[in-house]
Amino acid sequence: MQRTSVNVGLLGFGTVGTGVVRIISAHQEDLVKQTGMGVNIHKILVRDRDKPRSVPGMEHLVTDRAEEILQDPAIDVVIEVMGGIHPAKEYICAALERGKHVVTANKDLMALYGAEILTLAKERGSDVFYEASVAGGVPILRALEESFSSDRITKIMGIVNGTTNYILSKMSQDGASYEEVLKEAQALGFAEADPSSDVDGIDAARKMTILSTLGFRVPVALEEVVVKGIRGVTQDDIAFGKKLGYEIKLMGLAQRDDDKIEVSVEPTMVHHSHPLASVNGVFNAVYVYGEAVGETMFYGPGAGELPTATSVVSDLVMVVKNMKLHVNGQGMVAPYKEKRMKEETEKLSKYFLRMVVTDQRGVLARITQLFADNNISLGQVIQQPLPESEEAEIVLVTHEITKHDLRQVLLALADMDVTKEIKSWYRVEGGDE
Amino acid sequence: MQRTSVNVGLLGFGTVGTGVVRIISAHQEDLVKQTGMGVNIHKILVRDRDKPRSVPGMEHLVTDRAEEILQDPAIDVVIEVMGGIHPAKEYICAALERGKHVVTANKDLMALYGAEILTLAKERGSDVFYEASVAGGVPILRALEESFSSDRITKIMGIVNGTTNYILSKMSQDGASYEEVLKEAQALGFAEADPSSDVDGIDAARKMTILSTLGFRVPVALEEVVVKGIRGVTQDDIAFGKKLGYEIKLMGLAQRDDDKIEVSVEPTMVHHSHPLASVNGVFNAVYVYGEAVGETMFYGPGAGELPTATSVVSDLVMVVKNMKLHVNGQGMVAPYKEKRMKEETEKLSKYFLRMVVTDQRGVLARITQLFADNNISLGQVIQQPLPESEEAEIVLVTHEITKHDLRQVLLALADMDVTKEIKSWYRVEGGDE
Repeated sequence: MQRTSVNVGLLGFGTVGTGVVRIISAHQEDLVKQTGMGVNIHKILVRDRDKPRSVPGMEHLVTDRAEEILQDPAIDVVIEVMGGIHPAKEYICAALERGKHVVTANKDLMALYGAEILTLAKERGSDVFYEASVAGGVPILRALEESFSSDRITKIMGIVNGTTNYILSKMSQDGASYEEVLKEAQALGFAEADPSSDVDGIDAARKMTILSTLGFRVPVALEEVVVKGIRGVTQDDIAFGKKLGYEIKLMGLAQRDDDKIEVSVEPTMVHHSHPLASVNGVFNAVYVYGEAVGETMFYGPGAGELPTATSVVSDLVMVVKNMKLHVNGQGMVAPYKEKRMKEETEKLSKYFLRMVVTDQRGVLARITQLFADNNISLGQVIQQPLPESEEAEIVLVTHEITKHDLRQVLLALADMDVTKEIKSWYRVEGGDE
Repeated sequence: MQRTSVNVGLLGFGTVGTGVVRIISAHQEDLVKQTGMGVNIHKILVRDRDKPRSVPGMEHLVTDRAEEILQDPAIDVVIEVMGGIHPAKEYICAALERGKHVVTANKDLMALYGAEILTLAKERGSDVFYEASVAGGVPILRALEESFSSDRITKIMGIVNGTTNYILSKMSQDGASYEEVLKEAQALGFAEADPSSDVDGIDAARKMTILSTLGFRVPVALEEVVVKGIRGVTQDDIAFGKKLGYEIKLMGLAQRDDDKIEVSVEPTMVHHSHPLASVNGVFNAVYVYGEAVGETMFYGPGAGELPTATSVVSDLVMVVKNMKLHVNGQGMVAPYKEKRMKEETEKLSKYFLRMVVTDQRGVLARITQLFADNNISLGQVIQQPLPESEEAEIVLVTHEITKHDLRQVLLALADMDVTKEIKSWYRVEGGDE
C-alpha cells in the first residue's frame, strides 16, 4: 500500500519544538508537493502535560511517557528537541533500535556521542540528521558534507555562539564592560542565568567538534578542542584592538596543515577586512577555506524558535524523501581519515600582546629586542603612557609564530624587570601578513 | 557485477574543464571513500585536438567528435563545461536520451532551457545537476532546494556577477571612472573584450532566473527579469551614495509578496549596514530571506577554474552516490507554484534620486513639495551648489514607494522649470525605513 503520510513523534515541546509544530502546520501543502507525503505530528513528549502551550489544539497529542512515542510502531520519525545528554541519548538510541529515523537539534549530544549514534543508525538503516545543532538556521553541515565533498577543506572558522557574539559586539559598539553587557543580555533572554556554557566557550567547542569532524572527515573529540572563554576580555583589549584594525570575536578555529589538525575556541582579534569581522549581534557565521574553492562564508541566525525549526523540518524533508526512495541510512559518510593532532610547536598564528611596563627610556627597544632574540618579527607596535603613573602600555602584533614560541616569549617578558604586567594575548586572524 | 568505477565524458577542456580534471585526479582517494567508486575520465571533447594542454597525459583521451562521448555506452555521466547554448543543449539532450546523467556549469543554457532539460531528465530517470551555474563555488542552489525546503523564501538578493562587482568595487575604492576600471579589468582578464553580457546585466539576469525559479518554486522566464546594467553609473553617483551611507552594487533581486513576484537586476544603493554592502571584488554573495529562518547569506568566489570545478565535481559525487543507490532522477522538485508577476504598482522600494536644478531660493522647498503632493515622504536630502555655475545638485532618498509612483514623480520633476537634468535614480536596499 502506498503511504500518503509520515508520522512524527516529537520529543520536547519547548521553543524549538513549538517552532517545528508551527512550520509543519503552516507549510503542509509545500511539504506534500516536495515529498509526495503529508507530515503528521502523531505524539509529543512533554514534562508537564498540564502546562499551557502557545500552539492551540495539541492537547490530545501530548504525553509524559516516552515509550508512547518510542514504542509506537506507527511513528516513522522521532524529532528530538528536548536537549541535554540524558535521557535524550537513550531515547534516540531506542528510536533507532526500533527502526525509526531521527532528526535532532542537540549539539551537546552530537558532540559527545555523534559517532556512536551515527554508527547505530547506519547499522539499522536509519537516517540521523542534525543540521540544527550548529548555527541554527545556517545550513553549514550539509554544505560540508555534500557541497564541498570534492574539495580538501583546510580551515573552518566559526562565530557559532550567539550569546558571546552579542556580548562582544555590544562591548565594542557601546564601550560597556563585560559585566554590564552580560546583565543586559540576561535581561533580554540572550544569555542564561548561569552563562558558563556560553561565555566559557563550551557551547562553541561542541559545535566546533561537529564542524571539524564533518569538514576534515576525522573523528574529533570534544576534549581535544582547546578552549578559552570571553570572561577576561576587557574594554582596553577591545579599544587597542580597534586602534590596530581588529574586532574581538569568540572564534572557533579548525585548521589542517600536512594532515595534522588543531581545533580551538578562543577570543580572537579579527582584522576588519575579514568577512567574519562584521558578523555582529546574535548572528552566526561559518567561514570555510577549501584548497580548490578558496574562501566561502555562510551567515545567518544562530538560534531562535523558527530558524532552528527550519533546519529541523528541512532535515525531516530529507528523511521523508529518503523514505520514498527506500535509501535511508545511506547518506552519511563516516570519518575515514586518521586523526593526528598538532603539537604546540606546529600551531602557527599571529598574536596580539598587551602589557604594562615601566615608562622609562629604552624600554620599547629592550622589549622589541627580546622578540628579535626569540626570532619573532613584529607587525604593529603601539606604546602609550598611562596617565598619572610612571607606567606605559605596549601593544604589539607579531608575525606568524608557533604557540610554543608564544609561551616562551611570554615567560621571557614576565622575567624582565621593566614588565609590570602582561595584560592579555589573543590570536590574530586576517590583515597583512 | 558490482561496479567499481564511474566513467565520465567531459564536454569542453577550457578553464573549468581543466579544473575538473585536476580535482578528480587530486582527490581520487577521497572520491572513492565518499562514494565507494572510483571516477574515471573516459573521454574529453575538444575543438582542437592538437592544442597543448596544461594538464599532462590527457592526449589519448581527447576527441573532436561529440558522438564518441554521447554514443559511448561505457560513459555514465556527461559533464558539460563547454558553455554557450548550441550545441551544448543538443549534446546534453542526446546524453539524457541515452540514459546518461549530466552535470553542467552552463547558466545561459539552464536559464533558457532549464525546465525542458530537467523534464527530459526526469522522464529518463537521469540526474541533471548545475550548482556551478550560479555563483561558482557557492553552494546556493542546494541550499535553496534542500536546506530551506521547509521555509517560505520571500526575498533573494544576489551579487552574482564578479566582473561588475569588481568594476563597481574598484570605482568606489579608487575613485576611477567606469571606463578606466573596465579597461583595467579587461587587462587583468576579469572582463571580456566585449563586456556587454556582464555590464548590461544579462549574465546576472540568467542567474537570477535560476535562483528565483528554485527559491520560489515558480517557473521564471529570462525575459521576465527587468534588467538595467552598470554603464550609466558615475563617480558622482558613488560619491553621493557614500555620503548617505550606501555602496552601489549590481544587485539581482527576486521578491515575493502575497504570492506575486518580481525579478530584476539593476545597480542598487545598498546601505553599509547590510551584509551585501561589504562584498567586494570578484566575490559573489547571495542573501536569502525566509519567513521562518530570517536573514542568511552565502558568500564565496563567483568564478575561476577551481571554485567552479569544485561545484561541478561535488555534483558529480551526488550523481555517483545516487547511482549506487539507484535513485537518479528523483532528487529534483519541479516548480509547482502558479506564476503571478507583480505590476509596477505593486513593486515597492526606496529610491535614490540625483538631479541638477537652478540654484535659486526656494527650489528645494518646491521640489520637496512636489514629493509631498505625490504622497511620497523623504528620508534623506542633500543640496549642494555646483562650483562655477548657477546650478545646484539635489540628492534625495525616498521612503518606500511603488515603481509606478517613481515614474510619475520623475515625469513631474522633469516638467518643473527649475529642473535642469535628472542625473540618475537607483533602488535602495537596507538602512532605516
